[in-house]
Amino acid sequence: MSPSPASDGVRSIQRALDVLALLDEHHPTRTLREVVEGAGLPKTTAVRLLATLESRGLVARVAETTYTCGPALLRWVRLADRAWQVSPEARAAMRALVERCGETVNVYVRQGVQRVSIAQEEGTATVRSVVAVGEPMPLGRGATAKVLLSGAPDDLVTTLSEADPDLDAATLARQVASIRETGYAVSHGERELGASAVAAPLHGEDGRVVAALSVSGPTSRFTGERIPGYVEAVVATAHALDEAGLGPVEALL
Amino acid sequence: MSPSPASDGVRSIQRALDVLALLDEHHPTRTLREVVEGAGLPKTTAVRLLATLESRGLVARVAETTYTCGPALLRWVRLADRAWQVSPEARAAMRALVERCGETVNVYVRQGVQRVSIAQEEGTATVRSVVAVGEPMPLGRGATAKVLLSGAPDDLVTTLSEADPDLDAATLARQVASIRETGYAVSHGERELGASAVAAPLHGEDGRVVAALSVSGPTSRFTGERIPGYVEAVVATAHALDEAGLGPVEALL
Repeated sequence: MSPSPASDGVRSIQRALDVLALLDEHHPTRTLREVVEGAGLPKTTAVRLLATLESRGLVARVAETTYTCGPALLRWVRLADRAWQVSPEARAAMRALVERCGETVNVYVRQGVQRVSIAQEEGTATVRSVVAVGEPMPLGRGATAKVLLSGAPDDLVTTLSEADPDLDAATLARQVASIRETGYAVSHGERELGASAVAAPLHGEDGRVVAALSVSGPTSRFTGERIPGYVEAVVATAHALDEAGLGPVEALL
Repeated sequence: MSPSPASDGVRSIQRALDVLALLDEHHPTRTLREVVEGAGLPKTTAVRLLATLESRGLVARVAETTYTCGPALLRWVRLADRAWQVSPEARAAMRALVERCGETVNVYVRQGVQRVSIAQEEGTATVRSVVAVGEPMPLGRGATAKVLLSGAPDDLVTTLSEADPDLDAATLARQVASIRETGYAVSHGERELGASAVAAPLHGEDGRVVAALSVSGPTSRFTGERIPGYVEAVVATAHALDEAGLGPVEALL
């Protein structure tokens, strides 16, 4: 069966976005070879996608076969930056939470079957969580993901477990139900070995879970002794943010 | 003849980017109807493209059929901002030029057959030029475009005139040659009725034209009396920027 033009088109868009996604803070430039390997594409396809993205100013060439973000991205990043902005007061509350725990603080939102950090305040230790703001991450693993799931339609748990054979729907549903009871979640190494997190829900004015506040860092520092304090700090900050609001971004949540 | 999958794929990517391009500072949200009309697409295609972009977090829904920039764009904010950054000194020089002329100042770069502003300092009048940073614009029209063409391969003039029947290759080539002689360009209403600009080239260390510095505003203020002063100010600032450099962005030019 040959694929329909529609699905072909969607695949091309997905691939172009895969190529663009190879550029991030830690990889400000990529060679053609890295694009071929990173996106798992035939060289001719990679060349064609890069040419299309370059013609629209989304990537720019810094050398014969080395690429970086193009200037046309500037207009969307500014727009996104403004739309997804948390208020200075919310930033200050996040910063205070960093000071209390020493670990990186993020506000995550759910986007379909993924989650994305929209605001981050980095931890104070050298070894710290450095997930990139704006980088889509899985929704089935980790305390933050499950807090977001606690505010999502129940059938999403089924969808996620169908897509990932390692996720058991019943277990996930039980964990999500328990988060609805307790109002927080703790995880160790679910998404990445050695990474731990404590997370609590953030609510809109109508009471819906609209985001998750998380403190994350190396598992070695999320000890039984420290976790109760982290939980208390995260839950208290989440309550304070529910009172004060998150700022401009709330219009989108 | 049926189109090859390759060209189909490129067309899908172009369409997806056309949809994304409908979002800008003046249109931070778009309804499905506006996307259908603005991108000239069948409704089913628009729905499919929006779903694909939404699944990757590049657009987000603010209401049932209203869309805005998605949080996944945030991942490129710092990268694009950092890569295309002009130095604080270059900013100060641009600001001084605004103060001298009262009009909006931009630094434009060429990207293929388009031009994009990578840095802007807004004019002081209420009626002022408000081209968006990062928004691709045509390369065949306006003083800034022609200054950029003066540093581009000669065959680009042919390419542009072939794509736009209103552009005469011989006229454009003559104008570009004259800019190479005089070192500046002036235009009135070429790109948009009532919009005028004065522009001068910015050079890399190797002497190539790498960008254009422009002052732009309403034609009513670009009078015969004022233009000589604008030209002098733009050319002097361009020379100063050539001496001092543009900052981090030069690595990309």
